[in-house]
Amino acid sequence: MKKYRVGVVGALGAVGTEMLKTLEQRDFPIEKIKPLDIPENEGKMIVFRGERVSVEVAREGAFKDLDIALFSAGEAASLKLSPVAAAEGCIVIDNSNAFRMNPAVPLVIPEVNPEDLKWHKKIIANPNCSTIQMLVALKPLHDHFTIRRIVVSTYQAVSGTGIPGMAELESQVRAYTEGKPLDVKVYPHQIAFNAIPHIDVFMENGYSREEMKMVNETHKMLHDDSIAVCPTAVRIPVVRCHSEAINIETEKPISVEEAREILEKAPGVKVMDDLSKNLYPLAADLAGTDYVYVGRIRKDISVENGLNMWVVADNLRKGAALNAVQIAETLIKMNLI
Amino acid sequence: MKKYRVGVVGALGAVGTEMLKTLEQRDFPIEKIKPLDIPENEGKMIVFRGERVSVEVAREGAFKDLDIALFSAGEAASLKLSPVAAAEGCIVIDNSNAFRMNPAVPLVIPEVNPEDLKWHKKIIANPNCSTIQMLVALKPLHDHFTIRRIVVSTYQAVSGTGIPGMAELESQVRAYTEGKPLDVKVYPHQIAFNAIPHIDVFMENGYSREEMKMVNETHKMLHDDSIAVCPTAVRIPVVRCHSEAINIETEKPISVEEAREILEKAPGVKVMDDLSKNLYPLAADLAGTDYVYVGRIRKDISVENGLNMWVVADNLRKGAALNAVQIAETLIKMNLI
Repeated sequence: MKKYRVGVVGALGAVGTEMLKTLEQRDFPIEKIKPLDIPENEGKMIVFRGERVSVEVAREGAFKDLDIALFSAGEAASLKLSPVAAAEGCIVIDNSNAFRMNPAVPLVIPEVNPEDLKWHKKIIANPNCSTIQMLVALKPLHDHFTIRRIVVSTYQAVSGTGIPGMAELESQVRAYTEGKPLDVKVYPHQIAFNAIPHIDVFMENGYSREEMKMVNETHKMLHDDSIAVCPTAVRIPVVRCHSEAINIETEKPISVEEAREILEKAPGVKVMDDLSKNLYPLAADLAGTDYVYVGRIRKDISVENGLNMWVVADNLRKGAALNAVQIAETLIKMNLI
Repeated sequence: MKKYRVGVVGALGAVGTEMLKTLEQRDFPIEKIKPLDIPENEGKMIVFRGERVSVEVAREGAFKDLDIALFSAGEAASLKLSPVAAAEGCIVIDNSNAFRMNPAVPLVIPEVNPEDLKWHKKIIANPNCSTIQMLVALKPLHDHFTIRRIVVSTYQAVSGTGIPGMAELESQVRAYTEGKPLDVKVYPHQIAFNAIPHIDVFMENGYSREEMKMVNETHKMLHDDSIAVCPTAVRIPVVRCHSEAINIETEKPISVEEAREILEKAPGVKVMDDLSKNLYPLAADLAGTDYVYVGRIRKDISVENGLNMWVVADNLRKGAALNAVQIAETLIKMNLI
């Protein structure tokens, strides 16, 4: 079996760390791993499959000996270095927002639209975390019942903001227990003991960019701009795993039993739904797991064809690192690399 | 001006404490205050308007010298003692779920349906906290645009479970910072760093009772069972103030500008909505306040006539104690007592 030379850009960040861990855990066919990061981190060591590997600087020339580079170093770094990496012969799987809505770049969730990988031109975009878990759960239902409208409210973890977000919640919680004032640096407001309806920047239409990502990326990946999406994105004091309250309206009649049966067979999905046992997916339980978990599946009592559900996934794994690695795996499987 | 003899049942609980504080702060015309609680708390002292008052036992006979009793001692106590209090000549304003859907009992938010107080038979029900803040914000919009459907996701504070809920979050957060295991007693799962889509018990239709309260109480107070309500109720690690992501569909066309103008004039509502200043209502800022705060007012981009908003209120004040006191004030104003 062919092995690949893989780079991880942003190797010391929250998602980069998970990318390395995911590559290790999934027996990805690796000839060589190359952790890349900012100059300040040059020479720092990471451990991969029992070997210590030195972090190199992500810059021109660094991609010449690589087949694949997983990028998670922010939009600016991606905009600058992804074309460089591609020009140096490397396939880029980019976790930032830089290329997601670029019509020349496929945006892919392997369970949802693997076929879009066929037209890649060396750069492939990894979708936003909130969109990934929503569509992994909704695509199989869309295939059967044709979703016309989605109303979604998110309950998003601070790890979506990377290590600084996690550190801010941690430090605010510690300050609270010590009776000290809470320092606010990363978020516009205190995140401990709060719910902030503001993720990323606000757009002209009154929606946040995080919310509009859920609209636009859904249209791009389901190849249907007519699916109506109405999102509210909210940050809450959870460390890892985003939760989503999702309501769908479908063209065809939909029953809880059929929906559950379809979701139980759906790739990447685990149904956790037994109210008699207080069983439903919970953010605090699912850190480090790979599936999109669906519970509270119930008939929408307010429309004829509608369904509600509660969807939880680890935003750093399936919402970011794992989906990127799965894109690489799918490229291999489809002989596109 | 006539003064009243007022009892507070459950005087040492989270809501009872707020009821006393609210009565004190609002210059309610009080001749005598009588804190009532379980036998274990007999003789404990509270301070009201600078005087120490001894807690008496809530039991038969305790209501004979009272004009009004505000109950917040749980459903069982209300079912047992409200009829007793009423028989002893006292008007009961009950904060529990015991009588809310009883067709012989008015369920009232003074800003929404004060006219229902006219047919009271000595017992008046105070609505569920989540419903109160939702309808204070929606009633003025309903009057203008006729709401046909509401999709709502809640972000509810632990004080909704009273003092034990607040103590549980506090102790779990302390245990976390000390690296100790988290004790789970009050909620079915850990509440610190989590989002639990389970408030009150689950019903046969897959909805929680908290969710169905939002459906049924909306129908009762707006006198219209045809308004479709689709709720998801979620507990998050916030101490005080519930937040709600509310989506409405209206019969008539609705614009952000009109909606905002109407809400700015609406009784009990404060609009906090200036994205350029990161201004929107936040649970952590609004504890102890009396209004229903509305922000993130934006066009629903997924239907023709629709609007989204983010609604926050103190669940112990407007969601419970304050609304009960306002009911009493409205009874006085309408000469119904």
